[in-house]
Amino acid sequence: MTRIRAGLLLVALGTILGTLPFSAIAADDSRSMESVEAMPAGYRDWKLISVAHEEGSLNDIRAILGNEIAVNAYRNGVLPFPDGAIVARLAWRYIPSEENNRAFGRAQSFVAGEPTNVQFMIKDAKRYASTGGWGFVQFNDGKPAHMDAKACFACHVPVKDRDFLFTRYSP
Amino acid sequence: MTRIRAGLLLVALGTILGTLPFSAIAADDSRSMESVEAMPAGYRDWKLISVAHEEGSLNDIRAILGNEIAVNAYRNGVLPFPDGAIVARLAWRYIPSEENNRAFGRAQSFVAGEPTNVQFMIKDAKRYASTGGWGFVQFNDGKPAHMDAKACFACHVPVKDRDFLFTRYSP
Repeated sequence: MTRIRAGLLLVALGTILGTLPFSAIAADDSRSMESVEAMPAGYRDWKLISVAHEEGSLNDIRAILGNEIAVNAYRNGVLPFPDGAIVARLAWRYIPSEENNRAFGRAQSFVAGEPTNVQFMIKDAKRYASTGGWGFVQFNDGKPAHMDAKACFACHVPVKDRDFLFTRYSP
Repeated sequence: MTRIRAGLLLVALGTILGTLPFSAIAADDSRSMESVEAMPAGYRDWKLISVAHEEGSLNDIRAILGNEIAVNAYRNGVLPFPDGAIVARLAWRYIPSEENNRAFGRAQSFVAGEPTNVQFMIKDAKRYASTGGWGFVQFNDGKPAHMDAKACFACHVPVKDRDFLFTRYSP
């Protein structure tokens, strides 16, 4: 039981802001696996919502992008987000830039290295009714890596007032 | 003389990767001031090139966006960048996220706070022939803040092989 709880917590944390290898997902989570098998088309071209950095084991720097529906909702303060809104979290290894540091004359610059994984929150109030109307999916190297949407959702509940989205729009 | 050199260095560093108040630019740099008086239209909608974090006095987290010409050149490895390419550097205060940290159970999350300033590199091989074909401009609160393009350029020379752009495209 404790092991299962710990596993769920890991999945939840990975879901909110992290990267989690597929192997870390217990096989008995299959009941909540998402059926989204392909990354949303054109997500790399989407507009920027904001950026962030995670220390610790994640050790990444990340960008949060949104499709038109999501970005329009953010900019206009629309809550809840309309069906069709998709938020993408891209992340890359957080690495020092020796090149930049030389220009600055001191060690201060960190840039994006190799990509880690890509996560999406997909709004569909009916389909994902049990998880706040959001589907939670992730892809490693472009391939779907299953995750427990219920565990993801549990960690997003503290920001229910913002329709379960941690990220705020950066002007 | 030393003071002038130090000033130029500050301007150059601010130009590459930084934020620099208008008051830090010496009045005798007017000969090289840019005449770009408005931010390029729609820059906040541009596609993402990459992200970075600067420690030290800058203490920001940043996104580098590009217009269509710039992003296409990055993606297709076109060098030098064609006229009309514009690269935008947006930056925000680097702040811890208590909200995210609570979800993680540890202090590890940093997000974008208030915006600092926005800088652009604008490619026009003829107009900016003396600075590698790039114009260097910046805006504070949407208003042009003059900067010494020659000093900016001097710091970008080490990445001449990448057409003077420090930022690499993140997939």
